[in-house]
Amino acid sequence: MKTVTVQASRTYEVHIERGLLSKCGGLIAQVRPRCTAAVVVDDAVDKLYGARVCASLENAGFSPKKMVVPHGEQSKTLNTLGAILNFLAENGLTKSDLVVALGGGVVGDIAGFAAAIYLREIPFVQLPTTLTAAIDSSVGGKTAVDLPAGKNLAGAFCQPSLVVCDTAALDSLPDRYFADGCAEGLKYGMIADPALFEAFRAGVHRRDMDDIVAQCVQIKADFVRQDERDQGARQLLNFGHTVGHAVERCSGYTTPHGYGVAIGMTVMCRAAYALGLSRVNCTPALLEALDACHLPSSCPYSASQLAQAALQDKKRRGDEIALIVPEEIGRCRREIVPVNQLERLIAAGLGEDH
Amino acid sequence: MKTVTVQASRTYEVHIERGLLSKCGGLIAQVRPRCTAAVVVDDAVDKLYGARVCASLENAGFSPKKMVVPHGEQSKTLNTLGAILNFLAENGLTKSDLVVALGGGVVGDIAGFAAAIYLREIPFVQLPTTLTAAIDSSVGGKTAVDLPAGKNLAGAFCQPSLVVCDTAALDSLPDRYFADGCAEGLKYGMIADPALFEAFRAGVHRRDMDDIVAQCVQIKADFVRQDERDQGARQLLNFGHTVGHAVERCSGYTTPHGYGVAIGMTVMCRAAYALGLSRVNCTPALLEALDACHLPSSCPYSASQLAQAALQDKKRRGDEIALIVPEEIGRCRREIVPVNQLERLIAAGLGEDH
Repeated sequence: MKTVTVQASRTYEVHIERGLLSKCGGLIAQVRPRCTAAVVVDDAVDKLYGARVCASLENAGFSPKKMVVPHGEQSKTLNTLGAILNFLAENGLTKSDLVVALGGGVVGDIAGFAAAIYLREIPFVQLPTTLTAAIDSSVGGKTAVDLPAGKNLAGAFCQPSLVVCDTAALDSLPDRYFADGCAEGLKYGMIADPALFEAFRAGVHRRDMDDIVAQCVQIKADFVRQDERDQGARQLLNFGHTVGHAVERCSGYTTPHGYGVAIGMTVMCRAAYALGLSRVNCTPALLEALDACHLPSSCPYSASQLAQAALQDKKRRGDEIALIVPEEIGRCRREIVPVNQLERLIAAGLGEDH
Repeated sequence: MKTVTVQASRTYEVHIERGLLSKCGGLIAQVRPRCTAAVVVDDAVDKLYGARVCASLENAGFSPKKMVVPHGEQSKTLNTLGAILNFLAENGLTKSDLVVALGGGVVGDIAGFAAAIYLREIPFVQLPTTLTAAIDSSVGGKTAVDLPAGKNLAGAFCQPSLVVCDTAALDSLPDRYFADGCAEGLKYGMIADPALFEAFRAGVHRRDMDDIVAQCVQIKADFVRQDERDQGARQLLNFGHTVGHAVERCSGYTTPHGYGVAIGMTVMCRAAYALGLSRVNCTPALLEALDACHLPSSCPYSASQLAQAALQDKKRRGDEIALIVPEEIGRCRREIVPVNQLERLIAAGLGEDH
C-alpha cells in the first residue's frame, strides 16, 4: 500500500492500493472512533461497490447509513445538498459521526460540502472510484455545488480525515471517464513533473496505476501544503481550467471536465508561445500526450464565446484574472491578466486571426 | 465611538455608536477597497434603513446591490440561501467584492453563511439592527441556516471583516425584541461579569446602550479569541441554550430565542443547585433580573418533552452532551453529561417530582 500524507489545516493520509474498498472500514477505524457513518454514493457506483463498503464499515464496528443520489453532474446542486443535510439530520448524526463519500468527483464534492457545513462541520472520508477523484478532487479539501450561474460557485475548503483509493475501481471505468482523469494527470506533469508528463505521453496502463496515482497525489499535496486556501501557489493547479471551464459552460456542460481542461491546456500553451509569454513551445508535446490519452485538443467555440463564459471564473478578482502560463514542460507560472485582454489571449491560443 | 477588537482567524473591529448606519460606507472603506457591495436586508429593516445604508455606501465609492428577503425566522432556509447565492452570481460578484448583512440575527446568519460559501468565501460586513444581533450573532463568525430537523443545523464558521453597530437602531425595536436581546446580555453577566448582570437586574435604559453593547461584545470577543471553533471555552456562551433551543423547538419556533434562553437559564440554575452541581443558588437573582428585563422564567413543557427535543442539539457528541452549569453569578463551567441523564436534570430544573 502506498501512502501520501497531506499537511494542511488538518493532516491526513491518502492510501492507494488495489482492493482497498474491501478494507476501508479497518482503515477508517485507525483514524476515527466507531460511530454512525453516512455513506453518500450515486446509483451507478452503489451497484458496484455500495454493499462492499457498507459491509467493511460494519465489520469494523461502524453503523453505515446509505444515501443514494442520482449519478451525474446534474446532482451537484443545492437541492441535492439539502437532501443530504436532511438525511444526516434525520439519522441523528452528531459531530462525532462521519460522512463517507463513495464515488467520483460529483459525490465527493457534494458529500464533502455537506460534511463541511452540517453542524458547521463533521468529519468525512473520501473513497474515490474515478481517476479524476483519485488524483484530484478527493485530495485538498475543495468541496462545492454548482449554481444555475456556473459550476462550483458555492462551496467550502474542508479537508477530509482520510482518503482511501482503491485503484482496482479504476478498471471498471468506461474509457471516456478514464481519459477524463488523464487530463488532470497530464496537468500535474505540465506544472510540476516532466517524467510524469512523459508517462502519460507514453500511454499509461490502466491496470498498473498505483505509482501514477501516488505521484499525482504527492504533487497535489505539495501545492496544498504551500497554499491551502488557493491564494497563490495552489492556483498553478488551475492550469488549463479557466478556458476549460469556459468550454464546459459553452457546451451546456455536455463536455466532460477533463476534455475541457485538455482543450484549455492547448489554448494556453499556444497562446503563451504566440504572445511571447513562454520561450518554449510546449504545444507539440502536449498534442502528442493528449492524443496518447484519447483527449481532444481542438475547440468548437470562438475566442469571444470563451472569453464571455470565462468572466464568471472564480479566479477573477474585479477586473483582473489569474491565468496559469506554461514556461516549459514541468514548469508553469501565474500571470495576472486584465479581464479585457482575455479574449485576445484566447484568440491567440485558438490560432484565430485578429 | 467605542471599538472592540475581535482576534480570531481574522482580526476585525466592532464599532459601536448612535448614528453609525449613516456613516457605514466610510467605515467599511477603511477596511475594504471600493467594490460591488451586495446588501442583504429583510423587508421590515429595508423600510427603516435600506436607503440610508445604500446612500452611505455609494457616497464612499461602493456600488450597492440590494437584495430584500422576507423578514422572520422562516427565511432562514436553504431556499433563501440559494436565492442569495444566485443573486451574488447574477450580479457577478467576485472574491474582491463584499456582502453587507443589514438587520437582525436571521439576516446576519444567512447573509454571512452565503458570503462564507459563495466562491468558497468572499468578505462580509455585519450591520446589526437588533440587540440580539448587536451583542451576540453579528460577532464571532457563526453563520447558519435552519433545516426541517432543527435550527442552525447547517452553517459555517466565518468571521466578518467589520461590524458596525448603530445603537440608535435599537430605539426602534418593539419591546418584545428588545427583551429578546436582553436574555443574551444577562447570559454574559451570568457567565463572566457580575456587574453587567447587575446592570440588567437594575433595568438597562434603551437609549443609553453603547456601554452595555460594548461590554457584551468584549466578553464575546474574549471567548471567541480563546476558542473560535467552539470546542471548549466558547461553549460557555451556550449557557441556557440547550434547554432554550428545546423550548423553541417544542413551541414550533413561536417562542423567541431569547425567551427560550431565559427559560433555559432558569432551568439550569435550579437544576444545578438542586443536584449539587452548584453550591450557590443563583435562581432568585436570575428571576429578579428576568423580571426586570420582561423575560419569562416558567416553562410550559415537561422534562420529557424538552429532553427529547434537546437530543438534536449540536453540542451533543454521540451519547454525551456538554451542558453549561452556573457556579455563581458571573461564573459557569462546562459539564459533560450522559444523554440519558438529561431528562432527570431538566426535571430537577423544572421542579418536577421524580
